[in-house]
Amino acid sequence: MTQLRVPGPTPCPPEVLKAGSLQMINHRGSEFHEVITQVTEDMKKVFQTKNDMLLLTGSGTGGLEAAIVNLFSPGDKVLSVSIGVFGDRWANIAKAFGVDVVSLKAEMGKAADPDTLKKALKDNPAVKAVLITHNETSTGVTNDLKTLAKIVKDAGKLLVVDAISSMSSVPLPADEWNCDVVISGSQKGWMVPPGMAFASVSADAWKARAASKMPNFYWDFSRAKKSYDEKKENPWTPAVGIILQLSVSLKMIHKEGLQNVFDRHARCAQAVREGAKKMGLTLFADPKYASNTVTAINTPPELDGKKLRTIMRDEYGVVISGGQQTLDGKIIRVGHLGWINDKDVKEILTAMEKALQKL
Amino acid sequence: MTQLRVPGPTPCPPEVLKAGSLQMINHRGSEFHEVITQVTEDMKKVFQTKNDMLLLTGSGTGGLEAAIVNLFSPGDKVLSVSIGVFGDRWANIAKAFGVDVVSLKAEMGKAADPDTLKKALKDNPAVKAVLITHNETSTGVTNDLKTLAKIVKDAGKLLVVDAISSMSSVPLPADEWNCDVVISGSQKGWMVPPGMAFASVSADAWKARAASKMPNFYWDFSRAKKSYDEKKENPWTPAVGIILQLSVSLKMIHKEGLQNVFDRHARCAQAVREGAKKMGLTLFADPKYASNTVTAINTPPELDGKKLRTIMRDEYGVVISGGQQTLDGKIIRVGHLGWINDKDVKEILTAMEKALQKL
Repeated sequence: MTQLRVPGPTPCPPEVLKAGSLQMINHRGSEFHEVITQVTEDMKKVFQTKNDMLLLTGSGTGGLEAAIVNLFSPGDKVLSVSIGVFGDRWANIAKAFGVDVVSLKAEMGKAADPDTLKKALKDNPAVKAVLITHNETSTGVTNDLKTLAKIVKDAGKLLVVDAISSMSSVPLPADEWNCDVVISGSQKGWMVPPGMAFASVSADAWKARAASKMPNFYWDFSRAKKSYDEKKENPWTPAVGIILQLSVSLKMIHKEGLQNVFDRHARCAQAVREGAKKMGLTLFADPKYASNTVTAINTPPELDGKKLRTIMRDEYGVVISGGQQTLDGKIIRVGHLGWINDKDVKEILTAMEKALQKL
Repeated sequence: MTQLRVPGPTPCPPEVLKAGSLQMINHRGSEFHEVITQVTEDMKKVFQTKNDMLLLTGSGTGGLEAAIVNLFSPGDKVLSVSIGVFGDRWANIAKAFGVDVVSLKAEMGKAADPDTLKKALKDNPAVKAVLITHNETSTGVTNDLKTLAKIVKDAGKLLVVDAISSMSSVPLPADEWNCDVVISGSQKGWMVPPGMAFASVSADAWKARAASKMPNFYWDFSRAKKSYDEKKENPWTPAVGIILQLSVSLKMIHKEGLQNVFDRHARCAQAVREGAKKMGLTLFADPKYASNTVTAINTPPELDGKKLRTIMRDEYGVVISGGQQTLDGKIIRVGHLGWINDKDVKEILTAMEKALQKL
């Protein structure tokens, strides 16, 4: 059986696949109202938030765009803290909508530096909000969001977090860390197929929403909130199939227990890192901030990463990713989030070792 | 077994449900490249187009928004031909993005009048494009798009069509009728769950895209085209599960034969209309333009439509819809698109008849 170990889409457990074959239901009917209520409440527990939780039909990138078009007006100044490809993408989305983006970029493989953030906020007092990627999928680095969040909130700024590849896999207590908007995506730790994005929205974020002059319609947080509050529905026809699957995967997460899920991710990630090092490979990410959802491994000059991945896939059934953009050919990336356990990690490492020997 | 007969989501055939339980695959890998190529080519055959075909992850409303933000600039003048709730929604999307909308509204239940359209285009020479709903789901009316399209194209305007609830169920040869952009949605005649929108884009539409100054990112047609043309991919992580299901449903459509699919829809719709009339009910739509995908039936003053629907659902397992907005309480709507055959129609009518007798 193939092991899909790219950092999303992630494999779905059998219970979730089974729910994928459920017949459609009326998205304006009582059965759906019950399902979406359970999903929303179960999701709030994972976000550890009492804020509004919105389910949006679209890719994670759609969720990132939604945050921009709901919170800001053209010309608003925003600080983008980018540590890789997805941080850069988010800044580009903001720029596309006329937001005045101040870019704070860390070296690839490094986490954002708290002091640099503090200084940037001091140097740019007009900044209204800070965009931070919690876990950067392109480099396998997890920011110390707790520390960064405190700096942002002490400065009185809106904190907007891309938690697409972290939420549900590593701790991110949205309320405790005072996150105003947190975005995640279905195809990561949530163990369901891609096609939905999730957003938690704080009271301060709603104030920003009310002040926003950005044209929007489909992504409108207000319409989504109104539809859910008044009718337990989505304003548009949502991805009913994915919601039915989420209903199952969220029950699985809470049955295992959130802390156990986090511990399992930490343990699997640690095993992947140790295993790679044992094979003589080195890790791309700053070890202090190595991600528990995706590991980036350097491909030494003598090693053809693409060939390695092809052998792993075609001969051992393990699918991993390469590097993106400037990291193309320089790293390989292993996703270890969502439905993964120690046995899976062993299989990934065995496949990698055997493929390395072949090369 | 429940019969879901709202005008979307529609029931999925067993083959499609089975595909819903397939494990996820890498959206940047060769297996996906093959699937999306087949889906795109099979879809072009349904659209009867040689234009570009883009797969977007989102609801149908997202597809309608995509057309607006790709083709126009704020201040552009656009003629909206609305014959119901979804036509109005599209006009509202355009207005939300600063498009100068000239509204041409028909009475609910009527189709757009060709002469009125001709006059409106003469009266508004600055109009750049015309937005037309092919099939209005809220009223069960199908516009005579062929005639309307000729008027729009003779006037040299861009023709942008909402075919969410028509394409794949009733004939809409996009190229023959010179449609520039045609939007559809996965949860209708395509027989797969909601969560994807489709857009065909003509050469003239690409010129409009190039001239557009509307801020956009996620819905960007150019990015979608580039990603497909160069890599057979989507720029963002698409709804892989729905694409795998589409791969199956499109094969089913072409195996049955497009004309046979259209004939089956016409036959089932005719049977629903005749059946309702036999029960002494009257139809809401102008009979000349009655839709072959959804039938709106008047609820006489003495009949509680909501009660009727509840009995049909709870006692006979047939789920239909009520009216929307101003038509709430005045009509009931039966969806008969996608996976439907003569036997299903009989069951729907039997349920309706028995529920009527109970009331």
